[in-house]
Amino acid sequence: MKIIFLGTGGSIPTPSRSLSAIAIKRGRELLLFDCGENTQCQMTRAGLSSMKLDAIFITHLHGDHFLGLAGLVQTMSLMDRERKLEVYCPRGEGERIERYLQIPRYTLTFDVAVRELEPGEELGRGGYRIRTCEVDHSVPAIAYALIEDERPGKFYPEKAVDLGIKPGPDFSRLKSGESIKLRDGRVVNPEQVVGPPRLGRKIVYAGDTRPCESVIKLSRGADVLIHDCTLADELLEKARDSKHSTPSEAAEVAKRANVRQLVLVHISPRYEEDAVLLEEARRVFPNTVVAHDLMDLEVAFKE
Amino acid sequence: MKIIFLGTGGSIPTPSRSLSAIAIKRGRELLLFDCGENTQCQMTRAGLSSMKLDAIFITHLHGDHFLGLAGLVQTMSLMDRERKLEVYCPRGEGERIERYLQIPRYTLTFDVAVRELEPGEELGRGGYRIRTCEVDHSVPAIAYALIEDERPGKFYPEKAVDLGIKPGPDFSRLKSGESIKLRDGRVVNPEQVVGPPRLGRKIVYAGDTRPCESVIKLSRGADVLIHDCTLADELLEKARDSKHSTPSEAAEVAKRANVRQLVLVHISPRYEEDAVLLEEARRVFPNTVVAHDLMDLEVAFKE
Repeated sequence: MKIIFLGTGGSIPTPSRSLSAIAIKRGRELLLFDCGENTQCQMTRAGLSSMKLDAIFITHLHGDHFLGLAGLVQTMSLMDRERKLEVYCPRGEGERIERYLQIPRYTLTFDVAVRELEPGEELGRGGYRIRTCEVDHSVPAIAYALIEDERPGKFYPEKAVDLGIKPGPDFSRLKSGESIKLRDGRVVNPEQVVGPPRLGRKIVYAGDTRPCESVIKLSRGADVLIHDCTLADELLEKARDSKHSTPSEAAEVAKRANVRQLVLVHISPRYEEDAVLLEEARRVFPNTVVAHDLMDLEVAFKE
Repeated sequence: MKIIFLGTGGSIPTPSRSLSAIAIKRGRELLLFDCGENTQCQMTRAGLSSMKLDAIFITHLHGDHFLGLAGLVQTMSLMDRERKLEVYCPRGEGERIERYLQIPRYTLTFDVAVRELEPGEELGRGGYRIRTCEVDHSVPAIAYALIEDERPGKFYPEKAVDLGIKPGPDFSRLKSGESIKLRDGRVVNPEQVVGPPRLGRKIVYAGDTRPCESVIKLSRGADVLIHDCTLADELLEKARDSKHSTPSEAAEVAKRANVRQLVLVHISPRYEEDAVLLEEARRVFPNTVVAHDLMDLEVAFKE
């Protein structure tokens, strides 16, 4: 599973940081989290085809988080997309997105299915689920967690052979969770030759938010937490007023949630260099990076 | 007067061509013609402050010509703009733009005055006027001409001296169009010492269109005609269907309108090189250039 940071700037774009958009490639699926202005061009730069997009998850309706959607939709129509596109957004914002998509004078060649998600709702998808939580921002906003299903435990063929089982159909049955009965009457259960289920991977994108308990809870044990880091610690007051986070606040969330890695995004245009932000965060949570546009991050399984 | 080409791509942005947006700087005024997605970032790249924008003229409501507007408006609000922004659009499209600007969850700090212009309407502004005409596109669309007022004719001091006038207040009165009476009773009229009024400059931006008579009429004698050139001549059929123009069609318009210079824009993403487009146009109208992003063009007076 790979995360591609398409836009890492906060509020106002700069030549080096485009507006919020994060792509996740998981197998054949391509998901987008937020879709700020210019996302379609950033996708081209990253070598991602919008035609392969399955679903878009919008955290909130500040312009810098969704105003690339209509342009992206127009482009897919010009390319004759037929497959439905799913767009998810916080409770109460669906009608606003639908109205927005009706503004340009284009003819859509495919359906855009806009669906609101309640804070705390879980959306089952093939092999993973999307869980949301409310965040602490100035407008209705949610964070998203992509949580993979558990994978079956590791199969130990040598243990099976020791128990007198021959490689073949019996191996497959044990791997898939069935017990088997041997000729001598003994029964072998899967637990004897298969390890415990293994956790899937978990990625959390908090969107714009003050540090908050709900994000800590949602992020518990995540492989990657992508968190708002609009302003440096010295501008804490301004971060409070605008409902954003500073590096050490984001790092504290990561630490308390016991995540593997923290990635800082939504960097204010005032920071041409990210050294200060990084230093402030690493003091609290060492495994931190500041994302930059078009950076990608391979998320490996824990073992 | 300077034209800055912010976005020269057609329909779909590429890393080298952003979507339609053309800035014109005239004295202290900054005008924008079309405002495709990513215009605010292109303005930053060009060193133009959105805070100095006076008015935006939208040719039509295909997404690639106006979907940068809401983001630009959000950014100006984040920067506490207070001055009213004027937005002009074709007849019947004003309400759609107003609805669009109400979608994002921002708090605007200034008024956006949206006004529709009739095809053929003329809008007087200080020192110049904006004239529109209907074009031939698939949705309601207009072209814009920026036409400077005539400047007073050139004053010839040597002629005045020959007529016995001394430098000083009488020179000023003659320059400003007054007649003066000399001590010997002779009357000197301004026409005796001032040349004929001099034409101002004229720039026409046609937007998306098939070649058409109304644009030829609007462009008569223009210093610069900026014309749609989406597809090469070999794709004439496709240009016809999508209501765009080819290089030789745009060049024919320039030739018939007797303009000084033709600038081709709205280049399809399929053309990474513009040599073919340029060659096709120059065969018909030699003084042609293909615009590229961030190119600027100083428009000098004719004399």
